[in-house]
Amino acid sequence: MTAKLILVRHGQSQWNLENRFTGWWDVDLTDKGVEEARSAGEVMKAKGIAPTRAFTSVQTRAIRTLHLALHSLGRLWIPVTKDWHLNERHYGGLTGMNKQEMRDKVGDEQVHIWRRSFDVPPPAQEADDKYRMDDDPRYAGIDVPATESLKDTIARVLPYYQANIRPHLEAGETVIVSAHGNSLRALVKHLSNISDDDITGLEIPTGRPIIYEFDEAMQPSDRRYLDEA
Amino acid sequence: MTAKLILVRHGQSQWNLENRFTGWWDVDLTDKGVEEARSAGEVMKAKGIAPTRAFTSVQTRAIRTLHLALHSLGRLWIPVTKDWHLNERHYGGLTGMNKQEMRDKVGDEQVHIWRRSFDVPPPAQEADDKYRMDDDPRYAGIDVPATESLKDTIARVLPYYQANIRPHLEAGETVIVSAHGNSLRALVKHLSNISDDDITGLEIPTGRPIIYEFDEAMQPSDRRYLDEA
Repeated sequence: MTAKLILVRHGQSQWNLENRFTGWWDVDLTDKGVEEARSAGEVMKAKGIAPTRAFTSVQTRAIRTLHLALHSLGRLWIPVTKDWHLNERHYGGLTGMNKQEMRDKVGDEQVHIWRRSFDVPPPAQEADDKYRMDDDPRYAGIDVPATESLKDTIARVLPYYQANIRPHLEAGETVIVSAHGNSLRALVKHLSNISDDDITGLEIPTGRPIIYEFDEAMQPSDRRYLDEA
Repeated sequence: MTAKLILVRHGQSQWNLENRFTGWWDVDLTDKGVEEARSAGEVMKAKGIAPTRAFTSVQTRAIRTLHLALHSLGRLWIPVTKDWHLNERHYGGLTGMNKQEMRDKVGDEQVHIWRRSFDVPPPAQEADDKYRMDDDPRYAGIDVPATESLKDTIARVLPYYQANIRPHLEAGETVIVSAHGNSLRALVKHLSNISDDDITGLEIPTGRPIIYEFDEAMQPSDRRYLDEA
């Protein structure tokens, strides 16, 4: 049995649509996002992909994407683990801001640095920022970051993958991970061996399952979009 | 913190609507069932019920009911355990049959006995019955019953509850169980101390959350419908 890893970025969220920095704020899917999620399940079904285990973040848009895809696929019954380590990158003080407004205010260059530099985090969230999630019950006992660079995000995603997801791949399972642009970048960077400079420019489209297959030595294949495979 | 147990029977399924024996066959919700599930979440939200942990069967109608209710409630992120021990009673050879057709064929009395006797199971499913679930991948490694009495159902639900659900109540959590008419009867019989004769006549309505609260000695309160509480 060949181990397979399926990565799905959540369907369009309300703030994707509004072009706002979202991060850890818990924005739901749009109707289009719901359709993208269902379609991700239909692509997997058409390709005969049968996940035996699922992982997702604790954010509604990724959890619903997983549920909608598994429902399309007829496999809602598989075990699902939700963990904050798979959350989107925390955008700090940018959370909630419209990307165009930010560009107008601080300039394209600064926004580009915050969005695309590997290790420069945006400004930290202020103590009274209305988009803080520190008191949300899902993060009870967790030290919610005030901001994260992509490097910071990778530093929490990758050890989680190694400790919790990879063992199921070693056992030959088909694992699906429903997550976010930057938490999935962390996995793609590792599995496809992409440099720090290049990973920040890699766009992961919403609702299009990516597949990696692993050989006996746990070497991953090139990544492919399942709808092109 | 007072431990609370919320029981929700799945919303209307396609075979509820068609008045067919369903059991372990994996029938989905109707549009009405989807609405009932959402409404169960809204009732919990209105009453300030905040589940910290969820359990459900491995059957689509119960899993979707749970997901839809948790989505309404804004708590999709809580841990969910799915286990076949919470499945509906297995209706054996009756699975798939229209209840009225059965009544016409074998008489009201026989159907009533099969549906409502405590310890008489319906005839076992034949080896070639098209509604057998033995080969479904969700039951890999599980000895799928060929039929069950209510007593048989209780004999798998109750030990599961004691070993897996009750410890979370002892820890003071609010636990939601989304399941089926007969697997919930097993829990209600135990918690409300209902006799073998009386439990078979107890109807558990779809999509209406039932609440039990536990005192320090883990004695359950009377059961109440949350929408009446």
